[in-house]
Amino acid sequence: MTTYDIAVVGGTGPQGRGLAYRWARHGHRVVLGSRDAGRAQATAQEIAERVPDAAVSGATNADAAAGADVVVLAVPYDGHDELVTSLAEQLAGKVVVSCVNPLGFDKRGPYGLDVPGGSAAETAAALVPEARLVGAFHHVSAVTLWGEEEYLDHEDVLVCGDDVDAKQVAIELARAVVSRDGVDAGKLRIARQLEPWTAVLISVNKRYKTRSGTRISGLPE
Amino acid sequence: MTTYDIAVVGGTGPQGRGLAYRWARHGHRVVLGSRDAGRAQATAQEIAERVPDAAVSGATNADAAAGADVVVLAVPYDGHDELVTSLAEQLAGKVVVSCVNPLGFDKRGPYGLDVPGGSAAETAAALVPEARLVGAFHHVSAVTLWGEEEYLDHEDVLVCGDDVDAKQVAIELARAVVSRDGVDAGKLRIARQLEPWTAVLISVNKRYKTRSGTRISGLPE
Repeated sequence: MTTYDIAVVGGTGPQGRGLAYRWARHGHRVVLGSRDAGRAQATAQEIAERVPDAAVSGATNADAAAGADVVVLAVPYDGHDELVTSLAEQLAGKVVVSCVNPLGFDKRGPYGLDVPGGSAAETAAALVPEARLVGAFHHVSAVTLWGEEEYLDHEDVLVCGDDVDAKQVAIELARAVVSRDGVDAGKLRIARQLEPWTAVLISVNKRYKTRSGTRISGLPE
Repeated sequence: MTTYDIAVVGGTGPQGRGLAYRWARHGHRVVLGSRDAGRAQATAQEIAERVPDAAVSGATNADAAAGADVVVLAVPYDGHDELVTSLAEQLAGKVVVSCVNPLGFDKRGPYGLDVPGGSAAETAAALVPEARLVGAFHHVSAVTLWGEEEYLDHEDVLVCGDDVDAKQVAIELARAVVSRDGVDAGKLRIARQLEPWTAVLISVNKRYKTRSGTRISGLPE
């Protein structure tokens, strides 16, 4: 297995923290990013307590991204465009994995927001054309990520992107989370479907009082 | 199990024919609808040959819909609005299950079309406010539906709708297809996510040369 240097931008949020924990637990080197380096270090410390031999630390988003091979965007959609723009220099040339879910909530439940650029992943690609954008890890629940299970092997990670080699990195990074390769779901544009699918899972969760996940059937073993 | 009188509008298309076969095979009474009653009768005959004790026949779309408890819309998105408008009288008061997938295809693969009303299911609901619209059965592959397997039990049927009783009918109708209840995915608006998700499955199929399906993990047994 290739070991990556991963920066998780938004690494103190529930999704970012959970993914960082999974990658640290399974041998990758992770730097959590936050606007506040102190908060990132505190979350890194929480992970280090759970995974004693973890290579995990905290820094500002910019410092975290600057030192990584792979930058994971695990930030809320609100403020996403400004954040990506501010990190343009650090993201250029990197594999950038967007896990961003542009969702709204009202009395009918969760729904996919209208994203002017089609999806958050495509928007990031347009804002930083030199970044190698991939969409992935939208659907895994933050609570399950942070839990004790060795792997979330009842779920699949769907991956999309236009840069085949960058997409392959995300496909490999899925192994630390679900115990198997991510599923290649096609071009970056498919992020328009992957991102708001999270609304379906949240809606199912509400009705069944569970944490649902998505599994793709019919794939080769 | 409640036995329903089901009209499948667009019943000679691959998706409609496959669903009709599943319902006829598992004890429902099915009338296939088509613009051409003769073609509907020919497809009904094909199903009858495979399911000797099936209650299956063919008629025009309007005649099929007029006599049914449940009307399934298994038509292409192209022409959908005109067809639904033309059947307004027959759909009024009925449980109407939309399986319509508004998809486009170009060199980047399949993609969800921009639907002015949000989704095909919501558009039908707006066109015929007296119909009890449900969205369901978007993702099951036509080829698998028409195959020999007793049930497509590696897949889930996701169901959405604002009319709770109508939604329950579609949840029950899933049993004949996947051997278990459909998954309640929330309000009709969730059709905006369910319909274009089919683009993801088609994209996965292309890459893995398979017929993929969607399974929801974490549901109560």
